Amino acid sequence: MQIISGGVTAAQGFQAAGMHCGVKDNFAEPQPNKKDLAMVLSNVPCTAAGTYTSNVVKADPVILTQAYLADGKAQGVILDSGNANACAPKGEENAKKMAAAAAAATSLKPEDFAVCSTGVIGVELNISAIEAAVPALVKSLADSAQAATDAAHAIMTTDTYTKEIAVTVDIGGKAVTLGAMAKGSGMIHPNMGTMLCVVTTDCAIDAAVLQPMLRKVVSKTFNRITVDGDTSTNDTCVVLANGLAGNAPISGPGKDYDAFYEALRVVLEHEAKAIAGDGEGAGRLVTCTVEGAATEEKAEAMAKAVVRSPLVKTAMFGADANWGRVLCAIGYSGADFDPKDVAVKFLSAAGELPVCAGGQGVPFDEGKAKTVLSEKEITIVVTLYEGSAACSCWGCDLTYDYVKINGDYRS
Amino acid sequence: MQIISGGVTAAQGFQAAGMHCGVKDNFAEPQPNKKDLAMVLSNVPCTAAGTYTSNVVKADPVILTQAYLADGKAQGVILDSGNANACAPKGEENAKKMAAAAAAATSLKPEDFAVCSTGVIGVELNISAIEAAVPALVKSLADSAQAATDAAHAIMTTDTYTKEIAVTVDIGGKAVTLGAMAKGSGMIHPNMGTMLCVVTTDCAIDAAVLQPMLRKVVSKTFNRITVDGDTSTNDTCVVLANGLAGNAPISGPGKDYDAFYEALRVVLEHEAKAIAGDGEGAGRLVTCTVEGAATEEKAEAMAKAVVRSPLVKTAMFGADANWGRVLCAIGYSGADFDPKDVAVKFLSAAGELPVCAGGQGVPFDEGKAKTVLSEKEITIVVTLYEGSAACSCWGCDLTYDYVKINGDYRS
Repeated sequence: MQIISGGVTAAQGFQAAGMHCGVKDNFAEPQPNKKDLAMVLSNVPCTAAGTYTSNVVKADPVILTQAYLADGKAQGVILDSGNANACAPKGEENAKKMAAAAAAATSLKPEDFAVCSTGVIGVELNISAIEAAVPALVKSLADSAQAATDAAHAIMTTDTYTKEIAVTVDIGGKAVTLGAMAKGSGMIHPNMGTMLCVVTTDCAIDAAVLQPMLRKVVSKTFNRITVDGDTSTNDTCVVLANGLAGNAPISGPGKDYDAFYEALRVVLEHEAKAIAGDGEGAGRLVTCTVEGAATEEKAEAMAKAVVRSPLVKTAMFGADANWGRVLCAIGYSGADFDPKDVAVKFLSAAGELPVCAGGQGVPFDEGKAKTVLSEKEITIVVTLYEGSAACSCWGCDLTYDYVKINGDYRS
Repeated sequence: MQIISGGVTAAQGFQAAGMHCGVKDNFAEPQPNKKDLAMVLSNVPCTAAGTYTSNVVKADPVILTQAYLADGKAQGVILDSGNANACAPKGEENAKKMAAAAAAATSLKPEDFAVCSTGVIGVELNISAIEAAVPALVKSLADSAQAATDAAHAIMTTDTYTKEIAVTVDIGGKAVTLGAMAKGSGMIHPNMGTMLCVVTTDCAIDAAVLQPMLRKVVSKTFNRITVDGDTSTNDTCVVLANGLAGNAPISGPGKDYDAFYEALRVVLEHEAKAIAGDGEGAGRLVTCTVEGAATEEKAEAMAKAVVRSPLVKTAMFGADANWGRVLCAIGYSGADFDPKDVAVKFLSAAGELPVCAGGQGVPFDEGKAKTVLSEKEITIVVTLYEGSAACSCWGCDLTYDYVKINGDYRS
């Protein structure tokens, strides 16, 4: 497997486009130049799979997409940013209109489209702006890297950078490509944040295999990130697989399954970490790895508690080696363990800093701590001594800017 | 029942004291004038009950106090602030030394004392400073309101005000008094925050009645507040009842039980709200009341999710009527409900603002919203239409100062 440049148009037979249509103009500070409408389209029908928010309050496009993709088939995705179309007047009607507009302009059926929205909750979607723009959007569809980047831009809300990746992997002698785009960056918490992710691939794979595989990979990637503990109403991850690579269709376990699984895992882990590191106001990507645990579930519960803890997150903002807060967080994670048998260290490109052994502090140099913790990527390693299971979860620091972004604007 | 002035010395036969001994001098910015050592003492032996943190990582004074109070008897409490004596070298030894120093200076036994600590985790307690100060502390014990306030000051960390209350209630023809002091204000989350609370009363009550009653009242008061979702290692709530009011001892259900229960509930709810409103960096007390629910448990889960949500908390900081975040939070609370049957309004001394009905937004005036939400105390009322159960939980807004306090200092 190899990481290559590109995004959702990297795989054979996929086109994308992104443009400004006016959904973001509703805001107190209109954003006239910001792209807010995107499409990803395959030239041929695809096997499709999706995972969706666990929130009881689901946005209408989420409910619609679940229904449209229930047969394991789709051909495209239409997405807006700026309005989540959640708890909004005419929510269902407007989600259907988005799909219908996409269908009309592409001569496909509405059911061939996944519909994704992200942005403010409770405000009626400016559907006429979308309907008016879709023909031009479809006209601008292209299979270039730039088109993929335009689409990745058009789904951003408070994200500060696009989140694209592409990989190729050999599946049964054929070069299979996967590409993806994703967005964060607030309301991010395991069991899906306000995140949207679209994965395109030319792999041939059965829907009955793709759906459970996606669910499993999401549980080990997107469900292990947190920005603020708020699980959004709109989370959606959709995979479209059009089979144009010409590999023998993956229909069950085996070497091909394993190779595609690993490629999908690399793609989604990359997107998950990109979302965590670009959390609202974030200055650092914070990884917590719990190792030496009896089970992966336990390691995951503890790692999640650490990256979610506001006290750990503010300490990371302050580059403060406050390991007591790490112990406190694993202590309330719900996992049982012996506090006298825990070691903690901080890791970064600037070095390694052991801070706790046997459940108690070990002396360390405060100057070195500042150096290690001032990097852009920090890993907190918690070691138990009870088994060989491990898990990493990802989050970010809690900064003044998080408060500013969420206190000052209705987003 | 009547609220009166005073704190832990309001009930008959209780003395208190608070002073500076040097525990807080460890900090990068020493706090030479800040009180950091307190004692509460009854003139006679007491029935005692306690509730403690649910964190797996328990501070040594918590473990010790649980053991000392297991027989339902105690006579005093010794407390320090500035050092939590959690995950610290010589933790058990130093907790025992605190009790021993208190015992030596009062001619009582170490087992007669509850020991409470709050402050930084993982740093060795300056026990010699405490041991040197205890004789002077005991010498300054007094039954005055000032002595109670001195003790209340001496347990503060990042708290900005003391949290005292006293009430009297008629129990079987006798005037019974309850007094309390408490402290917050970070690492606050249901199942006890970094909070300490000492309640004194001259009520006569059996230990077998007091312990389960305390647990029940704590579940409806302290366990319904959150500041940051971090459950501390040190939470302790202790009740000392010395029986000097002369009422017939409360030994089971009945009118006297109900009267004392209600008085204890009022005292602990007052302290809980004081802690929530004085959360680290907080500018507002935020109450979420969920009403019309099928069960109280469900209402509680939903109300807790709302007051815990960083997105709701930042919206309250910004005085932004962002009700979509309220719906999002109840949606991931774990409670099941019909999103189409939810109403939300904001309440404060400045008026009432309905913002959502039938799961969708209702038009409101942004100017009025700012007025309603700019008050110091805000209530978010969520109405379901499925039953008659209700629950209130308390929290605070998330501000720049929370980030500053926890990002800039090791606390």
